[in-house]
Amino acid sequence: MYTIFELQSRIEKAIVAIDYPKHPNNLYAPIRYIMNLGGKRLRPALVLVAADLFKGDINEAMPAALAIETFHNFTLIHDDIMDNAPLRRGQQTVHEKWGTNNAILSGDVMMVESNKQLTKVKVEVLKDVLDTFNATAQGVCEGQQLDMEFEMREDVGIDEYIDMIRLKTAVLVGGAMKIGAIVAGASKEDSCLIYEFGENLGIAFQLQDDILDVYGDPEKFGKQIGGDIIANKKTYLLLKLQELAAQEDRIALASHALNTTTLPAKIDSIKALYDEYQVKDLATAQMRDYLDKAFTALARIRVPDEQKKELIGLANALMHRER
Amino acid sequence: MYTIFELQSRIEKAIVAIDYPKHPNNLYAPIRYIMNLGGKRLRPALVLVAADLFKGDINEAMPAALAIETFHNFTLIHDDIMDNAPLRRGQQTVHEKWGTNNAILSGDVMMVESNKQLTKVKVEVLKDVLDTFNATAQGVCEGQQLDMEFEMREDVGIDEYIDMIRLKTAVLVGGAMKIGAIVAGASKEDSCLIYEFGENLGIAFQLQDDILDVYGDPEKFGKQIGGDIIANKKTYLLLKLQELAAQEDRIALASHALNTTTLPAKIDSIKALYDEYQVKDLATAQMRDYLDKAFTALARIRVPDEQKKELIGLANALMHRER
Repeated sequence: MYTIFELQSRIEKAIVAIDYPKHPNNLYAPIRYIMNLGGKRLRPALVLVAADLFKGDINEAMPAALAIETFHNFTLIHDDIMDNAPLRRGQQTVHEKWGTNNAILSGDVMMVESNKQLTKVKVEVLKDVLDTFNATAQGVCEGQQLDMEFEMREDVGIDEYIDMIRLKTAVLVGGAMKIGAIVAGASKEDSCLIYEFGENLGIAFQLQDDILDVYGDPEKFGKQIGGDIIANKKTYLLLKLQELAAQEDRIALASHALNTTTLPAKIDSIKALYDEYQVKDLATAQMRDYLDKAFTALARIRVPDEQKKELIGLANALMHRER
Repeated sequence: MYTIFELQSRIEKAIVAIDYPKHPNNLYAPIRYIMNLGGKRLRPALVLVAADLFKGDINEAMPAALAIETFHNFTLIHDDIMDNAPLRRGQQTVHEKWGTNNAILSGDVMMVESNKQLTKVKVEVLKDVLDTFNATAQGVCEGQQLDMEFEMREDVGIDEYIDMIRLKTAVLVGGAMKIGAIVAGASKEDSCLIYEFGENLGIAFQLQDDILDVYGDPEKFGKQIGGDIIANKKTYLLLKLQELAAQEDRIALASHALNTTTLPAKIDSIKALYDEYQVKDLATAQMRDYLDKAFTALARIRVPDEQKKELIGLANALMHRER
């Protein structure tokens, strides 16, 4: 069994070794750029962790891991265009550096690159791997669409929100792990269970992100505390507050949303409402529910408990992170 | 053997029958929209013609044909964004109708849709089909990148131009036919030959497009004659003229390029230069060369000549078209 750190480091090396075509340079340079901007390499590591869980050969699973990381970075390029984001991991976004048209096209060819990586898996599992990957990729696109639509809607419910983060974030976590399991020759049932583990973990992870944005330790969080509040981002906390708040508090909330000048006051006011309605506790309870679902699925997987330790440790570490 | 018309009509029916997801509606509505804007369905028909040539079951090849048409339409959505085009087949482009962000994302999910269609081919040929499709898709992206870069360059050579149209247009024609052949169980050699046929036919087709833009019959062409001249588009004719023209004619050409007001005069002046340097004849000769290469490849394919008739007829019809 490998530790997550060993796997992340192998992935890092494999990414550096990818030999993209040289020509046309402006098509491939953005791919090299974003693939080497860093990041935790969590999604590809989960492909390998899952393969390892089922005693698969992690070298055989590596192309699938690279496909997942390439796909993830493709979505970052296109999402950054749609969000008009100037920075990604502290560096210029691809569309800022190369222009929007170039960024669209480099993203497109990255999607082809991920599919090329995927075809390197054993032919016996190719169809299954592709089916999982395509369902995953489709889900991620649907999630991004819903996320964009939510920005322009004022009636987003909690269930819809959970479904959006499931699609936008969690299906890729689940899909990555299922692909790792399939490559390792896991049974159909176990592959579905590891997907369930990953998807629920992904939802819990995103809920925790929402909580950390408001309640994280400013020393450790890395980003500005309250960033979501300033941007009026529809997080679990905000939607839950809208659901619970009395009429006068909803009116106050709406007026705070319009505040674009005294931002620390805006953060304090909305945080006070969160506290009043105990929204943090509700979000934490919801997160724990999804984490429980994840662990229940993991418990049902037919491999010795000993082999599950790395995954349990990883899930707990993710849930106790401060950034 | 089927006629091309029979195949086109089957494809039309199969496209209408595709059942895209309903939700999120704005993600899938653009796909339904562009897939039903019409068009000649030439690329998917070539998948089926090739399958038929090798006595394959055209129903088995249909998912691959739909994948090719879906991929082609995905490139149209993204290309129209990049070209800032308001109209496609006389109707609003997707990004005009749904906005650029939505168009990027619907295009992305169409790429996933094509991959989903492809996985429906027989598992014995899946890897080969995917390898061909991915190489094709990558080539198309590279061609679009070169096309965009050429717009900003003044030193584009004929060889580079041919390579660009090969990538942007011809590899998809070749790839479509090779995929049809693979699905039908053709030998490796025959699959490569049908690719060679398709790629060379595709280049010839694009060169003829360049010629028709200037020398087409205004009654039959469908578009404005001289559209490429007005837009200063770097066609084979223009690049050849730049290569051959004497110093004073190159200066005259550059000054005509700046003319954005008296357009009929601009068309006449540049056409006069084309005539002076016999650029049409040179383009026609080049087109015939590629057509010859296509037919040479076709002749080497090991199926009875009788079965090649539809394809020969189609190629000749394409070369004698007036629009």
